[in-house]
Amino acid sequence: MQFYSSFNPLKEANLDFKEINNYTQKIINLENLQFNEHGLIFAIAQDWLDGAVLMAAWMSKEAIEITLLTGQVHYWSRSREKIWHKGATSGHFQKLKSMRSDCDADVLLLTIEQTQDISCHTGARSCFFNDTYEATDRNPSFPPADVCTELAQTITTRKKSPDAKSYTNKLLDGGDNRILKKIGEESAEFVMACKDRKVDEIVGEAADIIFHLQVALAYHDISWRDVLEVLATRRNAPRRH
Amino acid sequence: MQFYSSFNPLKEANLDFKEINNYTQKIINLENLQFNEHGLIFAIAQDWLDGAVLMAAWMSKEAIEITLLTGQVHYWSRSREKIWHKGATSGHFQKLKSMRSDCDADVLLLTIEQTQDISCHTGARSCFFNDTYEATDRNPSFPPADVCTELAQTITTRKKSPDAKSYTNKLLDGGDNRILKKIGEESAEFVMACKDRKVDEIVGEAADIIFHLQVALAYHDISWRDVLEVLATRRNAPRRH
Repeated sequence: MQFYSSFNPLKEANLDFKEINNYTQKIINLENLQFNEHGLIFAIAQDWLDGAVLMAAWMSKEAIEITLLTGQVHYWSRSREKIWHKGATSGHFQKLKSMRSDCDADVLLLTIEQTQDISCHTGARSCFFNDTYEATDRNPSFPPADVCTELAQTITTRKKSPDAKSYTNKLLDGGDNRILKKIGEESAEFVMACKDRKVDEIVGEAADIIFHLQVALAYHDISWRDVLEVLATRRNAPRRH
Repeated sequence: MQFYSSFNPLKEANLDFKEINNYTQKIINLENLQFNEHGLIFAIAQDWLDGAVLMAAWMSKEAIEITLLTGQVHYWSRSREKIWHKGATSGHFQKLKSMRSDCDADVLLLTIEQTQDISCHTGARSCFFNDTYEATDRNPSFPPADVCTELAQTITTRKKSPDAKSYTNKLLDGGDNRILKKIGEESAEFVMACKDRKVDEIVGEAADIIFHLQVALAYHDISWRDVLEVLATRRNAPRRH
């Protein structure tokens, strides 16, 4: 890896990415990547907290190396025919958390932390905001993510646009006293289901706890994402670097 | 859309995909998709429950149309130069939940339900099992997904490979009586944090509830995925079709 011995971009750029040293010391198998006839490989950028796919673009070998060295994602711009430091113009940088290739090594999957949670040049969170069929009332502008995130979005939407028949709105209208009693109730039911060793009930009560927890969070204007971030950092979930 | 009037593949295939009719009636903007010089567009397949990216491949316009009509994902095989019905050989079909394009309409994002949760021809859940840097002890074989899923994987791993110093293992060793007391305790702390309107505490206690809930599930050999599925189906999360 003579590339690294010639200069130290981290030092020159005065970047304080301790964890990036782990990357640069551990880079392997870049030679195995399958670049296309233009020397490019397709890269998918995925949010590090909720799994949403935020964008996709091309990388050259050099873009990958600079990305690994700086910890900030660089793509290859086919229109401008040069390395593109994502965020250099918009300020919406992407901090690399991990990089993987697929089974035949011709696609990369980047786990990233997106500055200001805006990946798209349109100002959208994710570039994938176009449904190929007509928009429904199910908030198609949200990029697909994990179920808990989508449920939290539904609850937040319901809070903004109340529906008198909605159970969620009845809970929100009742405030803490109504919502928190349900937290206690569902927790007790979960405990009893575990004690009775009834698998279906355990699953159902766990789902009930999540739902009511999310209603309480929405009532207090707290995002599910905040909880995910605490779990990712405090609980030592297997977030790469 | 004369393509659809000529025959009814759903009926001919005797497929019972009620929801697919919504697709076929709502297909729009396929003409806006930007296919490359070979008439292909890149497609990313994402798990409908935890947001994991499972695979990526090419689609032709015909592959997209057949996918929308049948509800089962079809790609274009560049090596065999023909439409490839994913799962036709392996039995690992992909049921389409939604299809999106990105801002410049040259990449597709498919939300899918994967038969047997195996997307890769190697038998892996996801094709993205190769780290581009050395494997750590953090189970790099799991595809990146949302934080709760990764936390659940960490707990399950800890159950299989106990570490005497691990708090998770202490809880698991204590069984229901130890774990469920924590559920009650954390629930009460969450209630008090809400009542005190202390945002940081609310977030922290919510994270504590999730963690202990997941330990209880792991103790009973129940997967987090089962809970996600209940939430997706019962709670009317915005899962597309």
